[in-house]
Amino acid sequence: MSSLSAGPVLHEGKSKRVHAAVDAAGTVDPSYVVLYHKDDATAFDGAKHSVFQSKGAINCAMNLHLTTLLEGTGIRTHLVRRLSDVELLCRQVEIVPVEVVVRNIVAGSCCRRFGREEGEILSEPMVEFFLKDDALHDPPISDVHCLLFGWAEQWELEFFRAAAIQVNATLSHFWSEIGMDLVDFKIEFGRTPDGALLLADEISPDGCRLWEKGTRRKFDKDVFRRDLGDLSETYKELYRRVFGAELGA
Amino acid sequence: MSSLSAGPVLHEGKSKRVHAAVDAAGTVDPSYVVLYHKDDATAFDGAKHSVFQSKGAINCAMNLHLTTLLEGTGIRTHLVRRLSDVELLCRQVEIVPVEVVVRNIVAGSCCRRFGREEGEILSEPMVEFFLKDDALHDPPISDVHCLLFGWAEQWELEFFRAAAIQVNATLSHFWSEIGMDLVDFKIEFGRTPDGALLLADEISPDGCRLWEKGTRRKFDKDVFRRDLGDLSETYKELYRRVFGAELGA
Repeated sequence: MSSLSAGPVLHEGKSKRVHAAVDAAGTVDPSYVVLYHKDDATAFDGAKHSVFQSKGAINCAMNLHLTTLLEGTGIRTHLVRRLSDVELLCRQVEIVPVEVVVRNIVAGSCCRRFGREEGEILSEPMVEFFLKDDALHDPPISDVHCLLFGWAEQWELEFFRAAAIQVNATLSHFWSEIGMDLVDFKIEFGRTPDGALLLADEISPDGCRLWEKGTRRKFDKDVFRRDLGDLSETYKELYRRVFGAELGA
Repeated sequence: MSSLSAGPVLHEGKSKRVHAAVDAAGTVDPSYVVLYHKDDATAFDGAKHSVFQSKGAINCAMNLHLTTLLEGTGIRTHLVRRLSDVELLCRQVEIVPVEVVVRNIVAGSCCRRFGREEGEILSEPMVEFFLKDDALHDPPISDVHCLLFGWAEQWELEFFRAAAIQVNATLSHFWSEIGMDLVDFKIEFGRTPDGALLLADEISPDGCRLWEKGTRRKFDKDVFRRDLGDLSETYKELYRRVFGAELGA
């Protein structure tokens, strides 16, 4: 595995590409994949789409940093190591079709669905499940749907909830230290061939809401979704605040 | 309470009216209400509306019959007694804003939301919760929403699930005996002043799906919703099958 690099594309996602991992001889190692972070941003199930310079590199750096942070707290993830500015070597997993959302403050679909005010602070973190299915617009689901339609088992759902709360505690603290409220975020999990669950996908400002404390300035993909400013500049500013340096410096 | 009858209207619903219960002297007894079954049918949050002769009397008779049946199995309900062809005297309760849906066979919103085929038989009954809020189109909710937004407590949700499964067993058996599959149904619960939970609202073909075994002919409000025939004639035929006589005979 020491010489693995990106081989053929296995899956072209909206903001990431998944490549097979190949060795120096070009042989695919099915235990691994390479996650390539693209400069693309999409919203509304892909109806809105743009390309932002440096977005892939920023998200890759954030993903690496935050996933490594979570590994340090005992959360098992798919991350193996960084391959380039925009590529991470990860373990091959079967992604569970259940998106796990944690909310600390009411925003986004939580306002629309339940008629709640944006900014309402929840008395404790709310863990929600959504079916990962763009064609159905990722509908909200409950345990009973996962069990009866075979999307996940009960122990897996309990694992997701417990892991989500732990991830939330770590990430909320991290962002709070640099003056940001972690409003909500989405995570996904993957199953290894031996049945273990690993945190997978990506931990980045694409999959969360970050509000600057006090000003409530948005530092996440809502800037793009809601046309609140320049996403590229916003992500570069976030990079500076996280790493204390310019990107590439 | 022996002489209670319908007083002023407390709430005008889509297919029922709730009246205060008054005694012979016209004094309101706040422990009771009178449920008046109207001839109105509505669908799609009230966007579709019609009036069907005898519908109120048929639903009232069905409601009385089925609620009495459930009382006999130990389910506590709001029903006190029949006052007229279209009126039931019931205990006054505070309706919990959580609609409880039980599905045995996939149909309706379960197809649309999750891309499942109508007619898929579930391996066990599926209990779903929806927020009772027409303006929000009764969105699907999970336990965590009820708990964090204060709509119901955990023990109440467990009670709803257990009661729903018991009600489903009784009603499925009842309908099966007269050649009908109980596809799904909605129930609501109310809180008494001393904190007990009673099955409330209405048990009738307005709030369920009934398919004739073999033919899958619809004997429920889908006939109106989907323009599958004459709702009035369908309900009269169902009445004949349940009671073995014409309405009013």
